[in-house]
Amino acid sequence: MIQSIYFQKNPSLYMFVPMFYIVWADGILTHDEIKKVRELVKEQDWLNPEEKDFLLSQLDPQSPPSPDELKSWLHSIRSVSDQMTNDMKKSLVEMGIKLAEVNAQTMDQLSVEKAKTSLKEVEEALGVISSEAAYHLRSAQRKTTSETQSSLGSFDMETMADILDGQNKTILEEIRNLLQEESFDYLDTDHLSEYREQVFKWCKRLAEEGMGATAYPKEYGGEGDMQKYFAIMEGLSYHDLSTVIKFGVQFGLWGMSVYFLGTEKHHKKYLEKIGTLELPGCFAMTETGHGSNVKGLETTATYDHSSQEFIIHTPNELAGKEYIGNAALHGQKATVFAQLVIDGTVYGVNAFVVPLRDKAGQLHPGVTIKDCGRKMGLNGVDNGRIYFDQVRIPKKDMLDRYALVDENGQFQSPIASDNRRFFTMLGTLVGGRIGIPRSGLSAAKSGLTIAIRYSDQRKQFGPENAGEVPILNYRTHQRRLLPLLANAYASHFSLQYLTDRFLKRSESDAQEIEALAAGLKSFCTWNTTATLQECREALGGKGYLSENRIDRLKNDTDIYTTFEGDNTVLMQLVAKSRLSEFKKEFSDINFFGLVNYVSEQARTSLIEMNPITVRNTDSEHLLDFDFHLNAFQYRERDILTSAARRIKKHLDAGMDSFDAFNQTQYHMLHVGFAYIERVVLEQFQAQVERTTDPQCKATLTKLCQLFALTQIEKNKGWYLEHDYMAGTKTKAIRRQVNQLCAELRPEAVALVDAFRIPDSCLGAPIAVKKG
Amino acid sequence: MIQSIYFQKNPSLYMFVPMFYIVWADGILTHDEIKKVRELVKEQDWLNPEEKDFLLSQLDPQSPPSPDELKSWLHSIRSVSDQMTNDMKKSLVEMGIKLAEVNAQTMDQLSVEKAKTSLKEVEEALGVISSEAAYHLRSAQRKTTSETQSSLGSFDMETMADILDGQNKTILEEIRNLLQEESFDYLDTDHLSEYREQVFKWCKRLAEEGMGATAYPKEYGGEGDMQKYFAIMEGLSYHDLSTVIKFGVQFGLWGMSVYFLGTEKHHKKYLEKIGTLELPGCFAMTETGHGSNVKGLETTATYDHSSQEFIIHTPNELAGKEYIGNAALHGQKATVFAQLVIDGTVYGVNAFVVPLRDKAGQLHPGVTIKDCGRKMGLNGVDNGRIYFDQVRIPKKDMLDRYALVDENGQFQSPIASDNRRFFTMLGTLVGGRIGIPRSGLSAAKSGLTIAIRYSDQRKQFGPENAGEVPILNYRTHQRRLLPLLANAYASHFSLQYLTDRFLKRSESDAQEIEALAAGLKSFCTWNTTATLQECREALGGKGYLSENRIDRLKNDTDIYTTFEGDNTVLMQLVAKSRLSEFKKEFSDINFFGLVNYVSEQARTSLIEMNPITVRNTDSEHLLDFDFHLNAFQYRERDILTSAARRIKKHLDAGMDSFDAFNQTQYHMLHVGFAYIERVVLEQFQAQVERTTDPQCKATLTKLCQLFALTQIEKNKGWYLEHDYMAGTKTKAIRRQVNQLCAELRPEAVALVDAFRIPDSCLGAPIAVKKG
Repeated sequence: MIQSIYFQKNPSLYMFVPMFYIVWADGILTHDEIKKVRELVKEQDWLNPEEKDFLLSQLDPQSPPSPDELKSWLHSIRSVSDQMTNDMKKSLVEMGIKLAEVNAQTMDQLSVEKAKTSLKEVEEALGVISSEAAYHLRSAQRKTTSETQSSLGSFDMETMADILDGQNKTILEEIRNLLQEESFDYLDTDHLSEYREQVFKWCKRLAEEGMGATAYPKEYGGEGDMQKYFAIMEGLSYHDLSTVIKFGVQFGLWGMSVYFLGTEKHHKKYLEKIGTLELPGCFAMTETGHGSNVKGLETTATYDHSSQEFIIHTPNELAGKEYIGNAALHGQKATVFAQLVIDGTVYGVNAFVVPLRDKAGQLHPGVTIKDCGRKMGLNGVDNGRIYFDQVRIPKKDMLDRYALVDENGQFQSPIASDNRRFFTMLGTLVGGRIGIPRSGLSAAKSGLTIAIRYSDQRKQFGPENAGEVPILNYRTHQRRLLPLLANAYASHFSLQYLTDRFLKRSESDAQEIEALAAGLKSFCTWNTTATLQECREALGGKGYLSENRIDRLKNDTDIYTTFEGDNTVLMQLVAKSRLSEFKKEFSDINFFGLVNYVSEQARTSLIEMNPITVRNTDSEHLLDFDFHLNAFQYRERDILTSAARRIKKHLDAGMDSFDAFNQTQYHMLHVGFAYIERVVLEQFQAQVERTTDPQCKATLTKLCQLFALTQIEKNKGWYLEHDYMAGTKTKAIRRQVNQLCAELRPEAVALVDAFRIPDSCLGAPIAVKKG
Repeated sequence: MIQSIYFQKNPSLYMFVPMFYIVWADGILTHDEIKKVRELVKEQDWLNPEEKDFLLSQLDPQSPPSPDELKSWLHSIRSVSDQMTNDMKKSLVEMGIKLAEVNAQTMDQLSVEKAKTSLKEVEEALGVISSEAAYHLRSAQRKTTSETQSSLGSFDMETMADILDGQNKTILEEIRNLLQEESFDYLDTDHLSEYREQVFKWCKRLAEEGMGATAYPKEYGGEGDMQKYFAIMEGLSYHDLSTVIKFGVQFGLWGMSVYFLGTEKHHKKYLEKIGTLELPGCFAMTETGHGSNVKGLETTATYDHSSQEFIIHTPNELAGKEYIGNAALHGQKATVFAQLVIDGTVYGVNAFVVPLRDKAGQLHPGVTIKDCGRKMGLNGVDNGRIYFDQVRIPKKDMLDRYALVDENGQFQSPIASDNRRFFTMLGTLVGGRIGIPRSGLSAAKSGLTIAIRYSDQRKQFGPENAGEVPILNYRTHQRRLLPLLANAYASHFSLQYLTDRFLKRSESDAQEIEALAAGLKSFCTWNTTATLQECREALGGKGYLSENRIDRLKNDTDIYTTFEGDNTVLMQLVAKSRLSEFKKEFSDINFFGLVNYVSEQARTSLIEMNPITVRNTDSEHLLDFDFHLNAFQYRERDILTSAARRIKKHLDAGMDSFDAFNQTQYHMLHVGFAYIERVVLEQFQAQVERTTDPQCKATLTKLCQLFALTQIEKNKGWYLEHDYMAGTKTKAIRRQVNQLCAELRPEAVALVDAFRIPDSCLGAPIAVKKG
């Protein structure tokens, strides 16, 4: 079979063939190593000079074997592979001897033994490479990595999907059906204006279905159902995200600002028309010069006693309203936030309804609007810049729930402080910080569905001489996608919790819920960005093609980390709020006397800080919900107390409080994260506890463990710094994460199917499941 | 001044005003706390009942002070602020007493003392919030955070820019001048086809300047200057990235494949026309079914003995060539990679020049091309899918430098192994893995220039009652951008090093340089993605507007982590290569016997492992170059040995080598990273050492320290796990990173100016420097 006649004549020389094959195959061996093999041949005293010359000729870099000769070597090795034991297959030498035996009638046993010893030496020097190479010479067989296959999952997908939909199942079902209508087919266009018109039509269609007015009172055409409104934001986000944002601008920002900041006269005049989209409008808060620091807005609303009007004015270029959705094309009116000025005294930021253009699209006198043009995403939304030049509006168009100008032209408000009043007004609009992360999460789920379904089908590489393997079977690929899947489930349950808390809020927990919303908004939208980025990369070139929609999902949601509050700024607000909450818990003792006490308590009293627990690497312990929650809580408490200590230290040293907060700013971010992560874990665990279906519960348990351990792994530097865990334990956690990924791999497709995102919404050809 | 007449009549009550102000101001106090203040008032036995009633009336939630009244309190407090010492200003009580003193003619000292004691108690219970609040009541003053201003930097910007340009200064200058021509003005269009035509024109213009042929031999119109070619890729990447990629496809992939894989007949026939763009072409390797695993390509080139032709054929849909640049519109020919088949025997992947369309754009018979359509970015490049249906080409169109079919129809090659031959061919094309990261780095530099210039000007928030502060003065913002700036400098010098090594490569270091290129390509392109993402977010809404170009920079370069080799796959190749290198270093002893030895050595012999060093938190030590390099080297060596140990363990346990590598895959990624990071640090340090200008050297030193410590901080979990550093030390490193960021903040603008990116290329209105 081997072409060279010399081998055929001297079959004992076959012994060298496997090693020679490796010499010439994939370029694994270095020049030095080849030299070593040549020297070995020269040392074989059982070979005659002619045989040696022949063998050396096969190892001459100047005269390599022909491609066909090399192929014949491989073929002959594989042909005897079935006659070898597994142990033999690990060694090039054993393979060679077998090959010689099969081809030779007789073998000189002494020569064989001698050869074996010398060959073994070389093999050992070649080490792992040789051992790996031996595998390549075997014929095909089943392998562990390639055995893991897609499956239906160990749980009932529909039951899991019902758990996710929860009490929103009916409305979500309705939206899914609606979105599968032909009229919601995606538009494949380059044109900004075509796209914007399509989005406007889609919003119209949703308004026709009564979805726009859902949250408004019945008397204005709504259902008074805020819960449902949020579910609509979630469900619409399976589809085009420009539509979601345009929808949110119109019915959420514009409508809700009239509803929450205005009084009955405004509701009567506007709400019904807003809900039907008869009156498109804007929410004009952000200015070019003031985005995060909104209390510094510069637009003025100056009261004119004689005409009883407000004069809305943009004093300079930076005071122009920027990024305002609905402004460039459709908005006819806007809720404008401006500094109220009466007789030269400024009464802080208040809200006014100001006309922008008439039904025919003609701009109102004094109003200038510039188109923000093309954006990274959300190009179906017509964002614009608005400038006012002494635009007069009647007194009644001040949204006067929290402040008004009385008949005498005096400012009146139940809230004395301008800032507190403004932030109270903003507080009523916190719903936006619930709708946005729920929308972002839907986009992340779409990305994960596309990426996981594709990775389950896409094959690449595989064991030598065997089939290729689905890429989701690879550990790095599991590591890339499965923790993000766990994260999506975790986020889902925590956003449900936030929504419930928000809907049931009272004055006493309002501040807590505002912080929770700010924190979860940041946590979830950052996750959305990270998830879609990972999906893009995990999908390779397919993820770059627009047809697979990852680009649009990523680009559309990228701004979610900025609008409704910049995430970094929000996380600092969360941290400040935590500091106050913390203080409140112990308000009857001196705050800072307490800090050290509590901090010491936290350090010593927790049961898991004993030396055995710190080093405990048992799987049972590492997978234990209480261990996870304790670890999260410990971190939360410790970071909070140390932040308080540091700020105190700076202030004591005479530092300005602004500087003191800046010095601890980075630390404060972690205060926010630690708090939010604890809440998310708590809610995920609570969901697991209340799950009754045993299969779903088992899988959710693993997802929850993966979420917890991934977070701990991410923060392992912190845990090690604080001696909360020993290195042996964090290493064991890494292995446990690997293990959980492997166990969840066969569940992954069913877990994304449970998101119930219609294929027509996913849009991606690569996400279509094959028979 | 205070409106309430009662205060004016009883000026000693002014003592309460600052605390009352805080009660009604920004909503910092809780209901419980307000109750506490009310109780305090009741306890003051020096007050008469009427006074108490008055004071309590000022604390009644049902009847808050009017907005004007509250303003008057603040005004009166601030009016006496100048008469207070700094210590007094920290306390609401001290402020109140001062206020009372100024307004009252006489004060009953006993009452004052009593009041002081009780007020102090409340103040302490309010803790940090009270202390912070007191600051808000002071009149404006300078603050540390707000003092840091933009500056020209402590070094000469032009000198630094010359250091960066290095030996490429002339060509980079030429490119910068060219790109500022009017013909290179950006095109603002929605239309794919308009954009693609513009990009083609830009490539034509570059070819006219002789830039396309730079790397080709002089006899074919070039300059034989590969160094210059890479500099062109870098320089062009300040501008439109579609143009860079189209340029790279034409002159790099298509041209270089003909040059390196073909022989003289091909050079004569094609190279000159390629260099002038008279003959646009493609590089058709990737198939839908095979991207990373290219040796599994399925397109066939079957030799027909009778006609002496190859028949190029796409056997199934998945074997279609995908993502092929230049294919959808302009490519007339392509280098096609296909499995060569002669008489039923497959000789692995070889390369052929195959016609796609004629000059008029008419497709060649048997060729089908589909447009890949819109992509996440690079939409000026016409990517397509190509399918061949029995397309016949003459024998001479096989690129036959490494293999040919002889006159007898026999396959001939100096390289026996099909795989080794193919990877040798690919090895000649490794230049792509240098051009791409250099291009990506330029894009990252553009992003950093835009983000840092804007952050230096953009103001938001500030100390109470004082001006707003540039956002780059905030610690979190510094933390977001400045380590990425250090990273860009680090990447720059390491890519210069890689280019030098590549240009001077010999057979003996070819493998090392391939690994280095693969690793740096991954490291740098991942950094590009991360940098541009951070810039987008750090720029808030401005970063989302297309006019500021972050979106395009990000979206265009996003695929850099995928093409020219998927980063995750490449990093594993790097790791495998490191394992071989490692083995080679000790090839005269048994490999695995050695592993434990070396690993023990590494663990104990390094000087910095002594307990004092492990805990050393001195700045001098933390900033020491040797400390940095030792830490990087230690990590590199330890991860490598442990990876080897694990693979060996799995193999010893009878695991298939494919599975064994999959089990350690995640670990292997870190092997790759640890190696590359060490190389990058080494090259950055070397650059610092050879910098002669003292001011530039000082700033580069800080950047290099920031790079090193940011990496160590990122990997602190690992260092702590391995007891290489104690928690006290990693915490000190965090502080040191903060400190370096603060020190580099005034240098930041000059450091991005030194990138010398023309304003016309940046394009972003927000990046324009103001007077």
